Amino acid sequence: MNECYAGNVQDMMKLMATTISSTADSLSNEGVGEFIDELLNAKRIYVMGAGRSGLVAKAFAMRLMHLGMHSYVVGETITPAMKEGDTIVAYSGSGETKSIAELCETAKSIGGRLCLVTSKKDSRIGRIADCVAVIESHRDEVKDESAEYEVRQMRGEHRSFAPLGTIFETTAMVFSDAIVSSIMEITQCEEKDLKGRHANIE
Amino acid sequence: MNECYAGNVQDMMKLMATTISSTADSLSNEGVGEFIDELLNAKRIYVMGAGRSGLVAKAFAMRLMHLGMHSYVVGETITPAMKEGDTIVAYSGSGETKSIAELCETAKSIGGRLCLVTSKKDSRIGRIADCVAVIESHRDEVKDESAEYEVRQMRGEHRSFAPLGTIFETTAMVFSDAIVSSIMEITQCEEKDLKGRHANIE
Amino acid sequence: MNECYAGNVQDMMKLMATTISSTADSLSNEGVGEFIDELLNAKRIYVMGAGRSGLVAKAFAMRLMHLGMHSYVVGETITPAMKEGDTIVAYSGSGETKSIAELCETAKSIGGRLCLVTSKKDSRIGRIADCVAVIESHRDEVKDESAEYEVRQMRGEHRSFAPLGTIFETTAMVFSDAIVSSIMEITQCEEKDLKGRHANIE
Amino acid sequence: MNECYAGNVQDMMKLMATTISSTADSLSNEGVGEFIDELLNAKRIYVMGAGRSGLVAKAFAMRLMHLGMHSYVVGETITPAMKEGDTIVAYSGSGETKSIAELCETAKSIGGRLCLVTSKKDSRIGRIADCVAVIESHRDEVKDESAEYEVRQMRGEHRSFAPLGTIFETTAMVFSDAIVSSIMEITQCEEKDLKGRHANIE
Repeated sequence: MNECYAGNVQDMMKLMATTISSTADSLSNEGVGEFIDELLNAKRIYVMGAGRSGLVAKAFAMRLMHLGMHSYVVGETITPAMKEGDTIVAYSGSGETKSIAELCETAKSIGGRLCLVTSKKDSRIGRIADCVAVIESHRDEVKDESAEYEVRQMRGEHRSFAPLGTIFETTAMVFSDAIVSSIMEITQCEEKDLKGRHANIE
Repeated sequence: MNECYAGNVQDMMKLMATTISSTADSLSNEGVGEFIDELLNAKRIYVMGAGRSGLVAKAFAMRLMHLGMHSYVVGETITPAMKEGDTIVAYSGSGETKSIAELCETAKSIGGRLCLVTSKKDSRIGRIADCVAVIESHRDEVKDESAEYEVRQMRGEHRSFAPLGTIFETTAMVFSDAIVSSIMEITQCEEKDLKGRHANIE
Repeated sequence: MNECYAGNVQDMMKLMATTISSTADSLSNEGVGEFIDELLNAKRIYVMGAGRSGLVAKAFAMRLMHLGMHSYVVGETITPAMKEGDTIVAYSGSGETKSIAELCETAKSIGGRLCLVTSKKDSRIGRIADCVAVIESHRDEVKDESAEYEVRQMRGEHRSFAPLGTIFETTAMVFSDAIVSSIMEITQCEEKDLKGRHANIE
Repeated sequence: MNECYAGNVQDMMKLMATTISSTADSLSNEGVGEFIDELLNAKRIYVMGAGRSGLVAKAFAMRLMHLGMHSYVVGETITPAMKEGDTIVAYSGSGETKSIAELCETAKSIGGRLCLVTSKKDSRIGRIADCVAVIESHRDEVKDESAEYEVRQMRGEHRSFAPLGTIFETTAMVFSDAIVSSIMEITQCEEKDLKGRHANIE
């Protein structure tokens, strides 16, 4: 019986909560404002990401559709050709994900706008993006911070708190949901409007 | 320019962090222990969920695969027939999602085990599940709690903080990632092992 | 070396060609005309199917999008709520696929139109459909026809030529592509128009 | 009422049948034999393709799973890292699809085997493939053949019979199903075995 590990699960969740909260503090007002502007000015919004970042991208696209915006997921069946005036929102923790970077370059060459959600502004995608939301995940960094200390303590020396980018993905998802809430405020879209667009035949 | 909304985005993220933290506190040790046991004893693990809960389910299945466990997503191309000894993990905030409930009933009739991640234990799926992880999302509830007060303040009276289940999905994702970390501890699976299984041709 | 089986592969392909051709002969003009009318009159077109039939449905939705029509795949990320005036195209060889039948019933209750591509008109879905395209796959039937004879000869007695509905799916795909070509004729949509809508960032 | 177009639908289907049949004739025995050998010798089989070719790839992977083989779709949730001894089957009509070509190059660099289903052997992917199945779609070619004549007649001068690769995709699907049938013969896998692996909770 693994009941003894239940405490670890709770600690891990609280650590994630702390990380989300400190990420919120690190966001720049200008960056967030620009990000919202890009979305509101877009004719159509295309989202993409690889692996779990791709799932976060889809969760965001679904909400944009609920808001009545024209959103598409790159790679899904009925996603049409991108055109000038369309905006792509790419999720890439490293800002270097090869397949995503190439798609971003293509999108830019078509005349599309590019927003990046990442933890590395100075990266292949970051350098060509029109707008970058930096989610400070501290990935691949060893810092002498109290939070990091707890992490090491919790996991022993050698194991990682959040393997392979979990912090980035979760924080990116919370950030995206907060953006959606702000757009609801701005556009005065109410929850009952969203329910009307919510899939009724899934 | 929507810079003035940047503060809202930060507040929303912090509120989500608070919710995750209080959900961690509300978890029962027995429930979490059982959940981990079910996963470790499963021959194969099938995950499913509708809409955004389905995306959280996929994010979990991806991590289980990284851990070297046999995981499948219901509805994807190469998901084989379920058999006795297999376990299904269903994500449903309400515990009533029709399509998911029917799949759960089918899984039980085949002889599979059923784990549910939900905010409603007393629900159609909850009643037939072998193990229920209750994520207290307080959805559809109006409570006179300080956290709720902040929510109402932030959004005015009439708009919802987290439309259509966002709290459940995010908390379920953080819970699932914490479960993965605990399984890594238990099985002594290290991050380098995970990297070896991480998709290299995406 | 399995070179000796190459002949079997060729024979199998030719047999499929024969089946497609005889299916074409068996189509009723009224049925096909109605099917095209339903599509042209639809405000938005939703497609769905389970398993391989679902893949055929997606292939059809992709082409409809190329034609400039508003198509969606049930279950994909950005598929919005269905409304009156929308039409669903369901693919089900048996006409009885449980999950698909329930979605069709939901669609009808919303006020949507229902088109079915099937090999069994007298079936759960067939009975509620507004329009049925019958693809004669002869599935589950043993007939004393020359085509069937070749099949049995080719596979010995005990093995099936086209396991688990392959004939239905392929014929349904060829039928759907032929419908697309006809719609192109009717709407005078030219190939260059299609190329303009073809995904350019996949 | 578009009943008058019903005849066009039938003609189009018959023309597709003719194309499948002539493709079957053009297959080389060595090529088909090698293709089957590659699949039977593979430790695990990964499939991929872009757009509608990707749907054909998925239809093939589903059947391989039914046969009891270890198949995965590149890009789906639980697809693990590729290793030496694994084989990739790529579908690309042109043999040049950028994203697919890059994945193929990665697969080769990992030590994987590469099979290509294409209509252009002399292409970026074709040149690095271990085995190429050439599906003669005559795409982008104008030939003075009787079949082509019928095509032009049917569509008037300016419109294309099968826009954007339809012939390739359908023929590739029929070819793949024929390969599956042959593998069933070779491995003596019977239809009842397949049914046992067929998704029972979709």
